[in-house]
Amino acid sequence: MSTEIPKTQRAALVVEYGKDLVIKNDHPVVQPNELKPGECLVKLEVTGVCHSDLSTKLGNWGYKPPLPVIPGHEGIGRVVAIGQGTVNPDVKIGDRVGLKWVAETCLRCEMCRRGEESMCPNQKVHGYKVDGTFQEYCVSWVDHVTPIPDTISSEEAVCMLCAGLTVWKALKQTNTVAGNWVVVPGAGGGLGHLAVQYAAYMGLRVVAIDGGEEKRKLCFELGAEKFIDFREAEDIVGEVKKATDGLGPHAAIVTAASGKAYEQAVWYLRERGTLVAVGMPPTDLFNIPIVIIVAKALRIVGSAIGDRQDAIEAMDIAARGKVRCHYEVDKLDNINKIFDAMQAGKLVGRVVIKY
Amino acid sequence: MSTEIPKTQRAALVVEYGKDLVIKNDHPVVQPNELKPGECLVKLEVTGVCHSDLSTKLGNWGYKPPLPVIPGHEGIGRVVAIGQGTVNPDVKIGDRVGLKWVAETCLRCEMCRRGEESMCPNQKVHGYKVDGTFQEYCVSWVDHVTPIPDTISSEEAVCMLCAGLTVWKALKQTNTVAGNWVVVPGAGGGLGHLAVQYAAYMGLRVVAIDGGEEKRKLCFELGAEKFIDFREAEDIVGEVKKATDGLGPHAAIVTAASGKAYEQAVWYLRERGTLVAVGMPPTDLFNIPIVIIVAKALRIVGSAIGDRQDAIEAMDIAARGKVRCHYEVDKLDNINKIFDAMQAGKLVGRVVIKY
Amino acid sequence: MSTEIPKTQRAALVVEYGKDLVIKNDHPVVQPNELKPGECLVKLEVTGVCHSDLSTKLGNWGYKPPLPVIPGHEGIGRVVAIGQGTVNPDVKIGDRVGLKWVAETCLRCEMCRRGEESMCPNQKVHGYKVDGTFQEYCVSWVDHVTPIPDTISSEEAVCMLCAGLTVWKALKQTNTVAGNWVVVPGAGGGLGHLAVQYAAYMGLRVVAIDGGEEKRKLCFELGAEKFIDFREAEDIVGEVKKATDGLGPHAAIVTAASGKAYEQAVWYLRERGTLVAVGMPPTDLFNIPIVIIVAKALRIVGSAIGDRQDAIEAMDIAARGKVRCHYEVDKLDNINKIFDAMQAGKLVGRVVIKY
Amino acid sequence: MSTEIPKTQRAALVVEYGKDLVIKNDHPVVQPNELKPGECLVKLEVTGVCHSDLSTKLGNWGYKPPLPVIPGHEGIGRVVAIGQGTVNPDVKIGDRVGLKWVAETCLRCEMCRRGEESMCPNQKVHGYKVDGTFQEYCVSWVDHVTPIPDTISSEEAVCMLCAGLTVWKALKQTNTVAGNWVVVPGAGGGLGHLAVQYAAYMGLRVVAIDGGEEKRKLCFELGAEKFIDFREAEDIVGEVKKATDGLGPHAAIVTAASGKAYEQAVWYLRERGTLVAVGMPPTDLFNIPIVIIVAKALRIVGSAIGDRQDAIEAMDIAARGKVRCHYEVDKLDNINKIFDAMQAGKLVGRVVIKY
Repeated sequence: MSTEIPKTQRAALVVEYGKDLVIKNDHPVVQPNELKPGECLVKLEVTGVCHSDLSTKLGNWGYKPPLPVIPGHEGIGRVVAIGQGTVNPDVKIGDRVGLKWVAETCLRCEMCRRGEESMCPNQKVHGYKVDGTFQEYCVSWVDHVTPIPDTISSEEAVCMLCAGLTVWKALKQTNTVAGNWVVVPGAGGGLGHLAVQYAAYMGLRVVAIDGGEEKRKLCFELGAEKFIDFREAEDIVGEVKKATDGLGPHAAIVTAASGKAYEQAVWYLRERGTLVAVGMPPTDLFNIPIVIIVAKALRIVGSAIGDRQDAIEAMDIAARGKVRCHYEVDKLDNINKIFDAMQAGKLVGRVVIKY
Repeated sequence: MSTEIPKTQRAALVVEYGKDLVIKNDHPVVQPNELKPGECLVKLEVTGVCHSDLSTKLGNWGYKPPLPVIPGHEGIGRVVAIGQGTVNPDVKIGDRVGLKWVAETCLRCEMCRRGEESMCPNQKVHGYKVDGTFQEYCVSWVDHVTPIPDTISSEEAVCMLCAGLTVWKALKQTNTVAGNWVVVPGAGGGLGHLAVQYAAYMGLRVVAIDGGEEKRKLCFELGAEKFIDFREAEDIVGEVKKATDGLGPHAAIVTAASGKAYEQAVWYLRERGTLVAVGMPPTDLFNIPIVIIVAKALRIVGSAIGDRQDAIEAMDIAARGKVRCHYEVDKLDNINKIFDAMQAGKLVGRVVIKY
Repeated sequence: MSTEIPKTQRAALVVEYGKDLVIKNDHPVVQPNELKPGECLVKLEVTGVCHSDLSTKLGNWGYKPPLPVIPGHEGIGRVVAIGQGTVNPDVKIGDRVGLKWVAETCLRCEMCRRGEESMCPNQKVHGYKVDGTFQEYCVSWVDHVTPIPDTISSEEAVCMLCAGLTVWKALKQTNTVAGNWVVVPGAGGGLGHLAVQYAAYMGLRVVAIDGGEEKRKLCFELGAEKFIDFREAEDIVGEVKKATDGLGPHAAIVTAASGKAYEQAVWYLRERGTLVAVGMPPTDLFNIPIVIIVAKALRIVGSAIGDRQDAIEAMDIAARGKVRCHYEVDKLDNINKIFDAMQAGKLVGRVVIKY
Repeated sequence: MSTEIPKTQRAALVVEYGKDLVIKNDHPVVQPNELKPGECLVKLEVTGVCHSDLSTKLGNWGYKPPLPVIPGHEGIGRVVAIGQGTVNPDVKIGDRVGLKWVAETCLRCEMCRRGEESMCPNQKVHGYKVDGTFQEYCVSWVDHVTPIPDTISSEEAVCMLCAGLTVWKALKQTNTVAGNWVVVPGAGGGLGHLAVQYAAYMGLRVVAIDGGEEKRKLCFELGAEKFIDFREAEDIVGEVKKATDGLGPHAAIVTAASGKAYEQAVWYLRERGTLVAVGMPPTDLFNIPIVIIVAKALRIVGSAIGDRQDAIEAMDIAARGKVRCHYEVDKLDNINKIFDAMQAGKLVGRVVIKY
């Protein structure tokens, strides 16, 4: 069950927190006979670079990844080998599949049984707990890879596996119906620009918040109905309310890793509105008066990544052309420059690395 | 449409924030011919004394009540007059009815149309924006009074109109099924001791948190399965987790006006668990790391009071003996002593004033 | 509180079941001083003609309307008078408002309290239990009329008040997310062609079922993704399954008053799929094996008309140009010819009568 | 990974539809080295006998089981061997586990991903598609067996794996809150008597329908609040309505395999009520006028068996003594007599076979 597989490959590794990644040309490739039942080897065509990969490098989250580790958790490629004894007949050699943050879950714990795979305490995580997609050949799990429809290129599709999936899952938890208002702070960013499109596809009316003329133009192109420039706005809360019939929006998707964005959302949301919490500021506290949550009877819902079904849905919508990722193609050799730009906040759009 | 109504009555008024209430024996009674369509006059038999009434007296909430005002928002009595031109034929002279915090809503705004009456921006509030139940004859609204079943006494029933209603509504928003765990901090208190009983009636397994041997005994009698004494516990979060299969509870009803109780709940809740926010600490911030809400994919739901249907349900359950209020009977003359005891935290159980 | 109101008007009345409507030029207009509190007089600009109006004429439903009655339950016009003593300040003389099937509900019964106004046992029904919109001046109720946004003409808007409202409400009950498949039998019809558009607006993928080339073209223009011609299809169930990934659709909105359409839906739906029952064949039984409902774990949901909030939402979506009614303008004098054409199944599109 | 396992065992097989089962004393036991990864061998202590087993024998369902087959799908025993290469570390030799109708699902298809395992098209079914529990040693799947808590005996627990699970899952789909009315037709039967108890545990008010004084007494003991004797009642629909405040119940759990029970439920349900369809009359049609589903806006939900999480919940509730099965112990040698009695409708209570 395999095609010809090289013994070594190019890969980028974190070997010390905060230091540049080490790029190796002779990193060993896991060989087909080393695969366990349920595992597959994927020859990657592309990988996305996500802000979480920067956290892997920096080791600035509470739970640090064991080193060395190969980051990367948005990858697409072809299956070139499947572990002997694998039961699942749906994934075959040659299939184009997607790899995501949640690489495998146990499918038997309470969270998995309840359909909350992303909360599985036994999960494997690409690019954090197990090696990820900053390499040419990556081991993944057949029950969890995402099939990629023929109608979309790997470059177009790859960002759906983390950024797209995350905002799609978040939007599904907004308690909204078509015609309702949703606010997307950071609407021109990596997650935000996808959130605007998914929201528009669902029939939601989008208030985009971001800065600058370019972002304004982009947001309107993506389907936003209103744009608020945080650089010009003196009273964001007031402007959001004004833009949404004076009552405030029915929901907000906070993808920005910013305590300020959370605070504002609580204040501008309509009574009984829903704040979906996605962005993870490493240390910020939720500095809002408790009384306001009660008085407005708000709903605040944490949403982390998404599950297999969510990934398939998000990908299907993109594959039908309803959502498009804005990205630039780069190569693995530049990974450290990419991280530098990301850390400096200079990155415009999503970066996709092509192998 | 009226029985004999006196011209004056006994009433307790807040005339200056923070000062003792003034008890009058000759406060005017609204006369039947003064009632507008939809209004009714209720000769009260009892009123509860709620912590919110203390806030009315102190004027320590953001929106202060216009003075003078008669506090009180849990009352039961008989309808003695109905305004001419009233359409509703369901409420008749002689009916025993309950008055609650939400005295009237417009029934036509978006919140009312969506069945969220408590969020109606046009609402009238007993004991805050309109006169309340610290008087013998109180004006209320026929479309909003709660019918009181024959199987329960007014003294037993009255606390259901605010305390009972509030916790019942909160429990309905926990996303739980029978057999799930729910934590009730302050389980021996005015709201808490009712929450324990309603939760048990729903088949929820209750972890009660409170202090002292008497509270422990009470909580077990009311149906709690576990008790954690906050005076003895060194690690409340750890003890709650231990008490709930090591995974944490599915939900917590935070009725305590304490930022600390909120923080603990976020930490001990199970992944995807629900925190229903009820208690309103006047100034406390929600001092929890945002990251924890996302990582655990928690749901935080603000819940304020409850609607007409909730009140009828909460009352029905009590009227069938499934939930009982622990209270002491007192009289209006002692209202200032009652408030003093409440403010000093010395009040044991709910106080019901009998006219 | 009134403008100049004539004493008489033109109106069309059912005076005997099954007989032509009688058109009167001197039917009395209810005068402003005759209005009760809460009532308003609306000078109609347009009325839609609905299939239910034909049932009013024929008296072929279980509960027959008392005669004589003026049919019509989709009307738009200006408020010209408001009953003295009306509390609601939101509706004013000169406002353009919509009248719908549910003319008034009590807003206090269990169904109303639960937000299910359409199920209110005390409801008044335009054109059935109270006079409807086949007259120039119609009495309605301020708490229940639908405000009409400025961005839509009365002719465009009027069909949203019954046909649009009904399918919008039905679609909200499909348990679907954007990207799911929904089947609309009779997709080219009065309700169907609106269902296709609302569904597309929600991001649902529509399989339209209808007959003929014209309908096919129309359905694709309205946003359908697949079309099945029932005149050509030998196996509708099989073709629907084939059109929907082989698994069947997630939902079906059966607006057709046809037992056959119901039966087919049960067979082609995906496991756990939802059938929303809207069409009311007067006598047809639900001739499907019970076992199939259990084995496929289907959901069947009856949906009748819709509530005030639904009406406002449906109208808002139309007013923003997302949904357009296909209609022909006619005049009241032709009402009997219109009914003849309707009964003969010769009516193409919705008929709007202009006053 | 095994204890001592005999080569042969006692087992009861269907070898021809409609004929008596053949009881063998020398049926081969699957040996540990024959187990595939993920499989386990369970030495059974008990098995329940379910009405579905009779259908296996008779072959009277649409999809007939391949013969020969060993029926039985409620079994409890100890794990005595686990297939080599099994990943799941949670199930160990010696564990007491339960076997149910759904023996294994793929955990990767759309239905599994959506948490609807019972609808998995790849599922294995104990006693129908794979051998079941009418044998001493049964092969099952570690990811799907149900752990049995220590606080309950195998005899007590075994009926929860099909009968208990089925009604618990059905009750979870009733759209009810504590205090609502639910009707249980056949309340004294195998499924019904458990439904009454689970419903009572959830705080639902139960109207039990069954026949005879003994059943009446039983139902009240189990927690029913009202009892309607179908032998005496002249108008079941009317009596149910009368018993439930005149409005009808909020839900009905139809476990009876009787078209009549379904029809009655549609008529007595409250507006917006929910009928959960569980009983599977082999040929009965749903002979109700479609119009009534629309006019009452009913919800009809098919519910088949239940999933792993449902099973764990149902068992947990029973293990804490909240629900008890009424059963008689018998032995495998009598299986044909048991089926005769079942077919003749003479069986009182559930039969549990002890090995």
